[in-house]
Amino acid sequence: MTRPQTDRLVMKFGGTSMGDLERIRRAARIVAAEVRAGKSVAVVVSAMAGKTNELVAWTDGTGKSTAANAMTDDEYDVVVASGEQVTSGLLALTLRNMGFNARSWMGWQIPILTDDAHGRARIEDVPGDVLGAAVDSGEIAIVPGFQGVTRGGRITTLGRGGSDTSAVAVAAALQCPCDIYTDVDGVYTTDPRIVPKARRLEKVSYEEMLEMASLGAKVLQTRSVELAMAKQVPVRVLSSFIEPDADGVLPESSGTLICDEDEIVEKRIVSGVTMSRDEARITLLGLTDRVDAPADVFTRLAEAGVNVDMIVQSQARTPGSVNLTFTTGRRDAERAEALMTSAQAEVGFEEIRVDQDVAKISVVGVGMRSHAGVAQTMFRALADKGIKFQAISTSEIKISVLIEDAYAELAVRALHSAYGLETV
Amino acid sequence: MTRPQTDRLVMKFGGTSMGDLERIRRAARIVAAEVRAGKSVAVVVSAMAGKTNELVAWTDGTGKSTAANAMTDDEYDVVVASGEQVTSGLLALTLRNMGFNARSWMGWQIPILTDDAHGRARIEDVPGDVLGAAVDSGEIAIVPGFQGVTRGGRITTLGRGGSDTSAVAVAAALQCPCDIYTDVDGVYTTDPRIVPKARRLEKVSYEEMLEMASLGAKVLQTRSVELAMAKQVPVRVLSSFIEPDADGVLPESSGTLICDEDEIVEKRIVSGVTMSRDEARITLLGLTDRVDAPADVFTRLAEAGVNVDMIVQSQARTPGSVNLTFTTGRRDAERAEALMTSAQAEVGFEEIRVDQDVAKISVVGVGMRSHAGVAQTMFRALADKGIKFQAISTSEIKISVLIEDAYAELAVRALHSAYGLETV
Repeated sequence: MTRPQTDRLVMKFGGTSMGDLERIRRAARIVAAEVRAGKSVAVVVSAMAGKTNELVAWTDGTGKSTAANAMTDDEYDVVVASGEQVTSGLLALTLRNMGFNARSWMGWQIPILTDDAHGRARIEDVPGDVLGAAVDSGEIAIVPGFQGVTRGGRITTLGRGGSDTSAVAVAAALQCPCDIYTDVDGVYTTDPRIVPKARRLEKVSYEEMLEMASLGAKVLQTRSVELAMAKQVPVRVLSSFIEPDADGVLPESSGTLICDEDEIVEKRIVSGVTMSRDEARITLLGLTDRVDAPADVFTRLAEAGVNVDMIVQSQARTPGSVNLTFTTGRRDAERAEALMTSAQAEVGFEEIRVDQDVAKISVVGVGMRSHAGVAQTMFRALADKGIKFQAISTSEIKISVLIEDAYAELAVRALHSAYGLETV
Repeated sequence: MTRPQTDRLVMKFGGTSMGDLERIRRAARIVAAEVRAGKSVAVVVSAMAGKTNELVAWTDGTGKSTAANAMTDDEYDVVVASGEQVTSGLLALTLRNMGFNARSWMGWQIPILTDDAHGRARIEDVPGDVLGAAVDSGEIAIVPGFQGVTRGGRITTLGRGGSDTSAVAVAAALQCPCDIYTDVDGVYTTDPRIVPKARRLEKVSYEEMLEMASLGAKVLQTRSVELAMAKQVPVRVLSSFIEPDADGVLPESSGTLICDEDEIVEKRIVSGVTMSRDEARITLLGLTDRVDAPADVFTRLAEAGVNVDMIVQSQARTPGSVNLTFTTGRRDAERAEALMTSAQAEVGFEEIRVDQDVAKISVVGVGMRSHAGVAQTMFRALADKGIKFQAISTSEIKISVLIEDAYAELAVRALHSAYGLETV
């Protein structure tokens, strides 16, 4: 997208904002305010909060299949996609009853074309012509998030959190920005429940948001940020707990804009501190010091679908052997342990240890690219509080450390302060 | 349809039979038994019992519109059609988990083409080629009842009870019979709660079923019987409370077959006795005896959409005037009264009386066409119990009388006995 059509706007409301009729009416009032302000609007909606879980539970109960089986089934998608169909119709009715021209557009009507990986489909194409003409004519187009259709005409779903991705894809098709209304009012320098002085970021780059999304800041689904970056869709994260004033005007634009790095004039070295407790540390003690031993270990894990994040290798006490430490998500730890234990003789190690009492703390910022001393600040701040780190990993715009879980909040507070992220 | 393809079969399960996962599994076992017996099966399903009411209540809650407004709205259909989508997917998943080849076919996928009278659409066309090829290939096709799609690609619903009509339309498209599984095990000579000795009819003609359906026997939706008669689809009404035996074979075919009159060898004079309490009697006393006065009355009622059933005119005490009595459904009575009262001067009558304490008792039977004395038996039986009738109406195969509501059950029992309908 080279030039956004600024009079068009995609607005997305999540499950909490669609939770009951009163909340749907509030969302409708927010939509109405944008329409009155002259925008041509498409709205992407989630299912009512809790509804998707209920539908998934029903599919799980259809027989002896495991949830995993049902999840990749085309009929699973038929069932689960119904939740967004309901909220689409209800929002359209609500807007009509307020005197607006609105209609719903199912995934198969637009169509939102996806591949046929049912339960976790990827959007391949969203034609913007018909939908664009509809919104330009003054109609509010309501689009169910999370759902699409294959070229063969079967219903698909995008996987959990897919509605954010739907919204960005529709915005890309309409060549316009995307406002994501959610239950937080933006992206913060860190979790305000841990650091009350955490500051809302006015702007954050796609790259930073990607690191934050995948590191545990649960504001936006990672894929939606990837798509926004690829299609250069400006995304704003806004609170849905707002009300237009008596004249139907929304309060002054707030939230956080996720945009290209170039559009952020005042670049910070560090934009945010994130924390993830979904970590487990696995150590293979006394691994034979063959040159291909680590490759052997990680090939086995990869083939079993276990994602490995940080890796540290150190000399072991036994001569001719090393200790290999790596981290995985907590869900995968048990599987990784079983896999390694069963291959102990082939791989060749003395002992395996699994530690779930770990947390990953990261600092993220595009400014790191051009600034030295970022890591030193981090290590100094942690050392000052007596916090040891067990592993480090870095990217161009991120430094992560693995620490003992009990120190996680302390570490976040220390780093937030060390990088001067507090509200002034 | 000239020759049914006897290896194909449409099976329909109502909301009670789809009420929860255990009931869906039972329906799946019944479907499986027919497939094992060599049938090529399409299944039409309703939404889970109570679900459609919940969805309708939500649409009612979307704003200041009345329920009647929302009911005729295309977005109402988007919301309400989702209930059958869910049960279609769940039944398909259940059958797959039992090892069968099954898939759902939404109304827009087949397509079940309807007009665009949203909320009460009529089916215009159901192409049988793709669906027929699917079932002939051994796939169990699951079709959501109640829903269709316009030629413009918008979702429609058929109105309450529409799933029966969907099932018959699919059977007509597949040129095969239709088994309707419900919570009763067939059509009875009368309501067994009133007459414990009521007998299940093995066969009943389309014409008789139509009269019974519209007279208060709530087994099948009237439109589905009309369609079955027009397309000559044999329809069986069966209980869904059955279980295949250890070998997966269904118990000996029971239920009631609704078919062409010619296929019923042993014709009964009277097949059933029905009772309807949804009646109100309205009397205009002292109506001016103009030749066009009744026409004036009924034109006004028809224009207001009030359906009039029985009509009786008698001489009034005042010379030059008559008393005009007619019946309407209870819902319409208040409206009819208001309409007449506001037009009292123009129409010219002295007084209006409305009586809701009435019931309509009917005897139905194709044998009436060729037998005299049916009415006499009725009047004699009612007179013997001291029951007076307030109005009579007849058709070729039906006689109805309006009586005081308190006598309704007594009248049904007397007539059931007088026509020899008891179990031997």
